Amino acid sequence: MFNSSINIVKRTIRKRPNNSHKGTFGKVCIIGGNQNFGGAAIMASKACVYSGAGLTTTFTDPVNLDSLHNIIPEAMFVDYHDDNKLKSMINSFDVILIGPGLGNDDYSLSLVNQVFQQINNHQILIIDGSAITIVANHHLTLPDANIIFTPHQMEWQRLSDIAIPDQNDKNNQNKVNALHSTVVLKSHHTKVYSNNHIWVNPGGTPAQATGGMGDTLAGMIAGFTAQFANTEDAVISAVFAHSFIADKLAKNQYVVLPTQISDHIPQFMKKFEN
Amino acid sequence: MFNSSINIVKRTIRKRPNNSHKGTFGKVCIIGGNQNFGGAAIMASKACVYSGAGLTTTFTDPVNLDSLHNIIPEAMFVDYHDDNKLKSMINSFDVILIGPGLGNDDYSLSLVNQVFQQINNHQILIIDGSAITIVANHHLTLPDANIIFTPHQMEWQRLSDIAIPDQNDKNNQNKVNALHSTVVLKSHHTKVYSNNHIWVNPGGTPAQATGGMGDTLAGMIAGFTAQFANTEDAVISAVFAHSFIADKLAKNQYVVLPTQISDHIPQFMKKFEN
Amino acid sequence: MFNSSINIVKRTIRKRPNNSHKGTFGKVCIIGGNQNFGGAAIMASKACVYSGAGLTTTFTDPVNLDSLHNIIPEAMFVDYHDDNKLKSMINSFDVILIGPGLGNDDYSLSLVNQVFQQINNHQILIIDGSAITIVANHHLTLPDANIIFTPHQMEWQRLSDIAIPDQNDKNNQNKVNALHSTVVLKSHHTKVYSNNHIWVNPGGTPAQATGGMGDTLAGMIAGFTAQFANTEDAVISAVFAHSFIADKLAKNQYVVLPTQISDHIPQFMKKFEN
Amino acid sequence: MFNSSINIVKRTIRKRPNNSHKGTFGKVCIIGGNQNFGGAAIMASKACVYSGAGLTTTFTDPVNLDSLHNIIPEAMFVDYHDDNKLKSMINSFDVILIGPGLGNDDYSLSLVNQVFQQINNHQILIIDGSAITIVANHHLTLPDANIIFTPHQMEWQRLSDIAIPDQNDKNNQNKVNALHSTVVLKSHHTKVYSNNHIWVNPGGTPAQATGGMGDTLAGMIAGFTAQFANTEDAVISAVFAHSFIADKLAKNQYVVLPTQISDHIPQFMKKFEN
Repeated sequence: MFNSSINIVKRTIRKRPNNSHKGTFGKVCIIGGNQNFGGAAIMASKACVYSGAGLTTTFTDPVNLDSLHNIIPEAMFVDYHDDNKLKSMINSFDVILIGPGLGNDDYSLSLVNQVFQQINNHQILIIDGSAITIVANHHLTLPDANIIFTPHQMEWQRLSDIAIPDQNDKNNQNKVNALHSTVVLKSHHTKVYSNNHIWVNPGGTPAQATGGMGDTLAGMIAGFTAQFANTEDAVISAVFAHSFIADKLAKNQYVVLPTQISDHIPQFMKKFEN
Repeated sequence: MFNSSINIVKRTIRKRPNNSHKGTFGKVCIIGGNQNFGGAAIMASKACVYSGAGLTTTFTDPVNLDSLHNIIPEAMFVDYHDDNKLKSMINSFDVILIGPGLGNDDYSLSLVNQVFQQINNHQILIIDGSAITIVANHHLTLPDANIIFTPHQMEWQRLSDIAIPDQNDKNNQNKVNALHSTVVLKSHHTKVYSNNHIWVNPGGTPAQATGGMGDTLAGMIAGFTAQFANTEDAVISAVFAHSFIADKLAKNQYVVLPTQISDHIPQFMKKFEN
Repeated sequence: MFNSSINIVKRTIRKRPNNSHKGTFGKVCIIGGNQNFGGAAIMASKACVYSGAGLTTTFTDPVNLDSLHNIIPEAMFVDYHDDNKLKSMINSFDVILIGPGLGNDDYSLSLVNQVFQQINNHQILIIDGSAITIVANHHLTLPDANIIFTPHQMEWQRLSDIAIPDQNDKNNQNKVNALHSTVVLKSHHTKVYSNNHIWVNPGGTPAQATGGMGDTLAGMIAGFTAQFANTEDAVISAVFAHSFIADKLAKNQYVVLPTQISDHIPQFMKKFEN
Repeated sequence: MFNSSINIVKRTIRKRPNNSHKGTFGKVCIIGGNQNFGGAAIMASKACVYSGAGLTTTFTDPVNLDSLHNIIPEAMFVDYHDDNKLKSMINSFDVILIGPGLGNDDYSLSLVNQVFQQINNHQILIIDGSAITIVANHHLTLPDANIIFTPHQMEWQRLSDIAIPDQNDKNNQNKVNALHSTVVLKSHHTKVYSNNHIWVNPGGTPAQATGGMGDTLAGMIAGFTAQFANTEDAVISAVFAHSFIADKLAKNQYVVLPTQISDHIPQFMKKFEN
């Protein structure tokens, strides 16, 4: 299992072509971070930039502008209340990640709806955190795009109507097929469900059980899918990288901080570059 | 004394179960940080997250939002003027720490009163810094909860009515019994008084004598008690860890910064994990 | 090519005279960073300070004040809406860098116009990023100053009217001569065109293909030209240093962050000091 | 010269007594940082905390609150427009440092005047940067306190009316005696003039010639004089430490950043602790 995962990672993280520029490695839009959960959008943005995405733009509440620039000055900022900017820019991105620290209120819902209305089928849409809950609670119709969900078990229960004890591979796969999406089901051994294929993450450590870990993973998936053509392999490689780095840090740490994982992504990717 | 303390630490910091998630390791609420002393609440929050608490939410003045996210994006923010959020959320936490940088004005008092009214006897309440002075000055009746005080000697004098020269074990223990609380009495050799038991910290260095050291300790106690079932052992382990790390850093530093201690908590805990 | 470049770097980065002070090493003004692209101005400021400029003042939108001070407290701040300060201060600088994160709106244009009207022919003016697009789109007449443009290929197309496929040395050199400027044309192997001379950067890595890389380079060029008398050599040395550091970091990193390059400038310069 | 300086440093930085607390090591107030030069006050505050001062409170413009907490959460904040706080708190400090980033406007003058009116002769007053210029330009009468000036040569010219070419030891010493102050005259080899005694700093490097270096030195002098009983020796030890650290860093860096010096103070002090 470990070796076959390594193979996926190696065939994904290819040596970068010499004649490339930042446009070559994708444009990512991250939408999240309300007045309470700004750190989530910031951690996702950091993970995305450190994963090598060419350009990262973060749509968030203006109270988070300072922290965003401090932690990741490489990311650009847009006030997520600015409807015109959202509309005019949304189709310029290769990948849209919505959810980290987005919250559950009416405005969060309206943002999800705006994205669903505008997105086109050439774009990748990652739906994370409270955006998953919004989709579930409001029975939103999914747009025609390349969709990736990143639920933990409770969020998956809300989205799939499969109670946690019944979340076995067969039930999950059926629901995933009906959703025409990729699902990253986070748990002790995270699984990636895609079109009739299940991948099980060989790694992972309880040292990762701390707030912000999922936001960091979502940002990494955004960064990887922005760069690498095979989306399923890119998702798997991001999940593998996230826990591989954590496992390594956990040898010397009782708890691993999400931002520490991001710091180590460039080294990880270099090591597995092929 | 050192060896018996090590035993307490070892029986406390248990290897994390594989099948765990952030909920397993406790929810902590930190209330503090007015417009002058924001750093205190931020340092407590950092210490709490680095101690491995599952989720940390900081209730503070909005002027501190940026710094909180910058220093510890893993923590969530709530404006501590938002009464509704405080009321609706307060009973969802395993541990509530009130006091770091809280100040002594009317609003500080009202926050202490709100917490005292809402808290229930399944929750741990850590009363630190100016919150101790508020309890003493206003002769507040303690709520029915698992209470931990973290005074320095002057604060203990205010709370206990025992003048500093008279703060011997017998007088202190009597007062602690009357308070039905655990008391962490900070000094050169910090003591932890609980129900008819006194533990003396074998470590500690004058390099720790700088502002913010107590806020960091309070955050560590919050993080440890959120994770570990035996509250008294958790408190002792946090106090031990705090000075053990400081002693180590003080071998090469004339003064040890509080935030440096937090940086080393995950390694400390891994080393003593059992 | 590599060795001749090293020679330029070595004759440029001279050992600092003992009897010097911060005024000896130049005053730099950086104008940029609107409400969306603040990180760009901040990264340019960091690069400038770490390159050894004596004094760096950043004119930017007030929303970026906090992040500027956090990332580079050594830089001073001016609100770029403050016309009086701009007018009274502009001629006190040795080098003016305009463009990083400036944006393309009317206010950006007015800032470029103000600088063009005020600057004198003893000053160095670096025109970067959206300021290049502004010059091109509005057909601005260049002021009488020591001008350096730092376009990527698309910006150069806008400025020179030479389509990217036609951007060969002959066409480029003709246009550069007409502009009476130095042009740093950024690509896989960046070229520096000055008065009838072309230098080709021997280094560079696709790990640099990420947002903010150009802002960092612009800040380095500002810092180098502020200190070193031969402007052409200073520009070449900055470009060389930027990719030399990146190449080294890229041995262990799949992507190199712009702010990491800045961190390594002082060591690079010491190594090549002569 | 070097050895006799080492002796002063060693007799100054004494091993801390075990039975001490943060109050033992002094309370420092730093006044500075207007809306343009916030970084200066923040760098001084960092230097002061890292020098081991027990408690540091920074009076500055509110726009600098975030950056202060981010860079040095150990410092407390007061809005320097709050006259009542200034009045009620000013005599509680052992050391008052006024000047880093203070600026030259009417409000800066009023702050200097307030301090001069309130301070008493048990307190140490360090007058730095623009506060020196204010004293000189407005011919302010010095208060009865233990005063330390930290001018560079131009500021000393303004204060002393001695033109730079005439700033020899005899002229300087006469003026210092008339001022009944200690004067730290910053240059390639900084000199400390006190009551009929001149000390010359054996160290110093042109790598230090960058903005913020003086603010850091001022903060160190505040931190050292707050802790150590012999004020003259404390000033000399701070100046020595500042350039000793810089000299060491300059072995591998072409320019040394002020904030890097602060990072190394605790190690320096430990090494020379006696």
